Amino acid sequence: MSGNTIGRSFCVTTFGESHGPALGAIVDGCPPGLELSEEDIQADLELRRTGTSRHTSQRQEPDRVRILSGVFEGRTTGTAIGLHIDNVDARSRDYDTIKDRFRPGHADYAYQQKYGFRDYRGGGRSSARITVATVAAGAVARKYLREKSGIEVTGWLSQVGPHRLGCVDLASARGNPFFCADPDKLPLLEDFLRQLRRDGDSAGARVSVCARGVPPGLGEPMFDRLDADIAFAMMGINAAKAVEIGDGVEVAGQRGSEHRDELLPTGFASNHSGGTLGGISSGQDLIAHVSFKPTSSIQVPGRTVDVEGAPAEIVTTGRHDPCVGLRAVPIVEAMLLIVLMDHVLRHRAQCADVDSPTPLITR
Amino acid sequence: MSGNTIGRSFCVTTFGESHGPALGAIVDGCPPGLELSEEDIQADLELRRTGTSRHTSQRQEPDRVRILSGVFEGRTTGTAIGLHIDNVDARSRDYDTIKDRFRPGHADYAYQQKYGFRDYRGGGRSSARITVATVAAGAVARKYLREKSGIEVTGWLSQVGPHRLGCVDLASARGNPFFCADPDKLPLLEDFLRQLRRDGDSAGARVSVCARGVPPGLGEPMFDRLDADIAFAMMGINAAKAVEIGDGVEVAGQRGSEHRDELLPTGFASNHSGGTLGGISSGQDLIAHVSFKPTSSIQVPGRTVDVEGAPAEIVTTGRHDPCVGLRAVPIVEAMLLIVLMDHVLRHRAQCADVDSPTPLITR
Amino acid sequence: MSGNTIGRSFCVTTFGESHGPALGAIVDGCPPGLELSEEDIQADLELRRTGTSRHTSQRQEPDRVRILSGVFEGRTTGTAIGLHIDNVDARSRDYDTIKDRFRPGHADYAYQQKYGFRDYRGGGRSSARITVATVAAGAVARKYLREKSGIEVTGWLSQVGPHRLGCVDLASARGNPFFCADPDKLPLLEDFLRQLRRDGDSAGARVSVCARGVPPGLGEPMFDRLDADIAFAMMGINAAKAVEIGDGVEVAGQRGSEHRDELLPTGFASNHSGGTLGGISSGQDLIAHVSFKPTSSIQVPGRTVDVEGAPAEIVTTGRHDPCVGLRAVPIVEAMLLIVLMDHVLRHRAQCADVDSPTPLITR
Amino acid sequence: MSGNTIGRSFCVTTFGESHGPALGAIVDGCPPGLELSEEDIQADLELRRTGTSRHTSQRQEPDRVRILSGVFEGRTTGTAIGLHIDNVDARSRDYDTIKDRFRPGHADYAYQQKYGFRDYRGGGRSSARITVATVAAGAVARKYLREKSGIEVTGWLSQVGPHRLGCVDLASARGNPFFCADPDKLPLLEDFLRQLRRDGDSAGARVSVCARGVPPGLGEPMFDRLDADIAFAMMGINAAKAVEIGDGVEVAGQRGSEHRDELLPTGFASNHSGGTLGGISSGQDLIAHVSFKPTSSIQVPGRTVDVEGAPAEIVTTGRHDPCVGLRAVPIVEAMLLIVLMDHVLRHRAQCADVDSPTPLITR
Repeated sequence: MSGNTIGRSFCVTTFGESHGPALGAIVDGCPPGLELSEEDIQADLELRRTGTSRHTSQRQEPDRVRILSGVFEGRTTGTAIGLHIDNVDARSRDYDTIKDRFRPGHADYAYQQKYGFRDYRGGGRSSARITVATVAAGAVARKYLREKSGIEVTGWLSQVGPHRLGCVDLASARGNPFFCADPDKLPLLEDFLRQLRRDGDSAGARVSVCARGVPPGLGEPMFDRLDADIAFAMMGINAAKAVEIGDGVEVAGQRGSEHRDELLPTGFASNHSGGTLGGISSGQDLIAHVSFKPTSSIQVPGRTVDVEGAPAEIVTTGRHDPCVGLRAVPIVEAMLLIVLMDHVLRHRAQCADVDSPTPLITR
Repeated sequence: MSGNTIGRSFCVTTFGESHGPALGAIVDGCPPGLELSEEDIQADLELRRTGTSRHTSQRQEPDRVRILSGVFEGRTTGTAIGLHIDNVDARSRDYDTIKDRFRPGHADYAYQQKYGFRDYRGGGRSSARITVATVAAGAVARKYLREKSGIEVTGWLSQVGPHRLGCVDLASARGNPFFCADPDKLPLLEDFLRQLRRDGDSAGARVSVCARGVPPGLGEPMFDRLDADIAFAMMGINAAKAVEIGDGVEVAGQRGSEHRDELLPTGFASNHSGGTLGGISSGQDLIAHVSFKPTSSIQVPGRTVDVEGAPAEIVTTGRHDPCVGLRAVPIVEAMLLIVLMDHVLRHRAQCADVDSPTPLITR
Repeated sequence: MSGNTIGRSFCVTTFGESHGPALGAIVDGCPPGLELSEEDIQADLELRRTGTSRHTSQRQEPDRVRILSGVFEGRTTGTAIGLHIDNVDARSRDYDTIKDRFRPGHADYAYQQKYGFRDYRGGGRSSARITVATVAAGAVARKYLREKSGIEVTGWLSQVGPHRLGCVDLASARGNPFFCADPDKLPLLEDFLRQLRRDGDSAGARVSVCARGVPPGLGEPMFDRLDADIAFAMMGINAAKAVEIGDGVEVAGQRGSEHRDELLPTGFASNHSGGTLGGISSGQDLIAHVSFKPTSSIQVPGRTVDVEGAPAEIVTTGRHDPCVGLRAVPIVEAMLLIVLMDHVLRHRAQCADVDSPTPLITR
Repeated sequence: MSGNTIGRSFCVTTFGESHGPALGAIVDGCPPGLELSEEDIQADLELRRTGTSRHTSQRQEPDRVRILSGVFEGRTTGTAIGLHIDNVDARSRDYDTIKDRFRPGHADYAYQQKYGFRDYRGGGRSSARITVATVAAGAVARKYLREKSGIEVTGWLSQVGPHRLGCVDLASARGNPFFCADPDKLPLLEDFLRQLRRDGDSAGARVSVCARGVPPGLGEPMFDRLDADIAFAMMGINAAKAVEIGDGVEVAGQRGSEHRDELLPTGFASNHSGGTLGGISSGQDLIAHVSFKPTSSIQVPGRTVDVEGAPAEIVTTGRHDPCVGLRAVPIVEAMLLIVLMDHVLRHRAQCADVDSPTPLITR
């Protein structure tokens, strides 16, 4: 089954494992004529690269992307874009100790029971390493949406462990290794992560993302709503356990008179909805949040079973992120970019001719 | 674009609007030989029917389902199952006042800008009425999963407005109009809703759902994870704004040593994950939560614009639920049933031959 | 698996059997704003209706279509269009004799082995009766393509048994029960069919179809070529055994200097290709041909086996067409309409912005 | 739109162009546990390789495949299989002369009008070179079907230009560069092709393929019939203009008493149908035929237009096959293998539990 493909009109199919020779993606359906270079994609890959701060895995991967097809004389041709990234710093020997036992909180046991055996090196296909291909594909969407549709997607870290982080200065999120948009909290974050490493433990996190410039009308009424496709994409990121749109889980405690965003000729009076109504974009800023569980690979010993079902103990070594959420911002952005790109094209397929008599109240 | 279809191997396509003559679904891919009658489906439809308590819309729809194809001599044939439900109590005159203006919090403005015009009668395709077809299709999945796979799906109301509700006695959720599994809270719920009606306002809610008997191995690694497909399905329900798996948004505040569910030969030591690891079912109870926004159709006047963009005021009349979450339990169940059914078949396609050497630690 | 759906951007899903209460289709992805009435669809249904000449099955079905959703105030809303046609003249008693044995040349044995049992009444889902839903859906595409894209699709009968029929006067094909565009051959056809009935036998046929006004650029390079999708759609019609584009099977015997259609500023010098180059429409007339096998339900006795595998004899009674090809023209047209509609929307999704510097050489 | 993907349960997505740095495929949905090496795939690639006889293009491509993912310790893991083949002998300078004009019979004009510009080097994505990725993917299917399902797929050349070739000794088709199964005709073929080269012209061809060991039950009733998917796959091969199943175009001239294959307890009495009934495999040998047009790249000068629409003349140089059909056998086989593999998995998804009371009459 095509579990490795996302999208209907803009389709991304990926391959690759943590310790295989290479990872990659095929981007299908990109409109022709878009100027696209390896540097355009590289910029996004740099954002998610490991080894760039002491708070992330020390695995050193240059993550150099090659465009193998679909671009001619600097422009997309409209045919399949092949993207290729070599793995260069895989150390499979690190994983011999976990070959025969399942790491709690990891996909190991589920893979074993699904497939009968598993590639235990770094988690194989279940590794967060595989998101490099997603980010590369998302960069193609970013280029198109920015240049052709005026849509800009930016994420930030909104929580780490018990610490909520505001979106005080969104632009500043790109200037620190945490994607923190709340500059005053940076020292607190440093302290928190230092302590976490000392404890040999890990922490969960929450990432938020905003898309500006989204026109009203993206998404489809029944199942393929824009918010449903966002939920699908986000929950598909490694370690994600919750997806919220707009006010998210808070809506359960709200009243209708408080939640509904009134419409004024100059725009909506508020944005509790997070930019979708009935699953279709409203033209407001699109806001989503993703909660990531804490890394399960920690130095605190834990109980598990081995491949024969006998009890065992495990202490994870290898190189790991103490908080996967810290590096999730570019991945969350990539997923939103892919979904938006898909819906921009889908909307155009069905509704290119539509001319609404109602003026846009947002712009 | 096929926005009205959900599923890959077990595919449900629906049609219908709040005020059209009928709604229905085509269920494609159901295994042959399943005993299936209209009564089997009717049982689930009764659970979501309006007009059965004073806390839901007073629209009186018998919701009688007809099976038009795909069943022969009481058993599914393996071909497309056509399901048909007539609308009998649509009162379109109720909606004349909102014909030319957009209801805040509703899909009206988004539909208008997407399609250039809209069926304003009861929200058309954006009405919660359309979930009747989803519930009918889910009933087919429920029958199969219960009889052939031993999977049982049950939901309950876990929050209404500010009130959190426990899962004290799951079986009791079917015995009251709120699907409340916390019997002691019933008087509080009655009071809360009575006050809400007096205020002419509405409240949000949160619904939880549990699938028992799910085997390990359902779901696919990359995009089509079981949890991603659940998120897609749930966020596609009207008024849903957040989807959580297991501990959900709480995971952001947890530590790895707390969250990771240790494995013992007798089963997992805890279930923070909610039954998925790496997006694949672990064999534990599958737990999801959906947060619903408060109904936007309230009697509190609100500001809006009309179809020409001029300012206007709106007071919603018509028959509405003061808390859509109260009736969402059967819909949430149906969505989970459809997703599980799809993944049971998908898993079988790829992995029917797999024989894992590792014993099941859950059962 | 979604075997009952065709199309990606314009999606048609059907249900129904020969002897069930009703048949229908859900048409998903139709652009909004198209004027559409039941009469528009009825016109195409009349073309394929049985019982209108003595050369077709005498089953009397009015084939009245009802639009159950997706149309509001006479225009498509952009949401799912539900189409419904009742079966009124099914005579299931006719089939009791074949309940326990397989009709040679029919799907009976294949269904039995696939599903373990079968709806034997009139072939169930394998009956040509089910094409009524396809034709209804095709009529929606015809309306759109004619009005919005200037595309006109017309088919004709190009062979019956040993008799090749020319396309002398395409317009005349609509004026006789054979869809024959070679008026001089009508008496020969009448004679041939009369003799066939006397013999209790049946004959094969070939249907040709032409789409005029197709713009260049429809179709996609790799797998989803326009001609590949046409082949898929046509081979999916009951009794189809061959699909040809342009010169079809004749190309195997041609030379490159003969086959390649030279380009002139005023258009192509010939049309051996049938309107596609590299799987993409060239702007020329699109030409396809479908060969239909003779009806297997004949009065000549034949050998078969029963459901337990024992030898048996069979003589088909019931009401059947002596030449299914005679009624296949509207079905072939519908399939081409659905494929073209899908590719018009798909092309728009990806290439709406394209502005080729090369002038169109065809119009 | 996902035009570069084929299959639903066994999905193949490809990328690459004639003159790009590499081509490749992602094979998604392969069952886990299959022993698979690069040598397994290489064997099929050798069959389609150019430069191995004087009757094919003299381009020298080693076509060495690398498996980049999805295989661990020699067995498929069940995750996406990444396949990669470098281009090493592309000579783009050969194509400078056709940069500004359209080659008749090629995709040039259609691509130009669809995408606004085109990769003119060797036809870009429209080149037959891209089938190397398809053949690589097909080899994975061949391994599975042979080892797990007992299905064997073999093709042969059944016509070249005016010369019909029999299937006298199917095994011998692998022993000559023409895939000719009619050994006595080899000298005639040599002579014909020698003369063709002297004339600077090309010839069409017809390829036939047989799958043995196909169980009854593959395929779905409505649109996704096995024969429809075969037609889709085959017509998607470069230069294909007709697809036939069983007796193919001959059925139009047959009578029902002649065509219908009677059933005997020991098997079918004949195989006019080519192994499908109602679109579902019958258990007989599956037979298909594909007609290929003659190569359009010939040395005979032809009329065309340039990118500005002005008249021009063209003489194709570069390295080309005088008869593409000669090398099409491995591609036709690959396509059939991919389709069969997909339907084996699809059938298992829906019908794994089916136990028909009727004995198999074919084996």
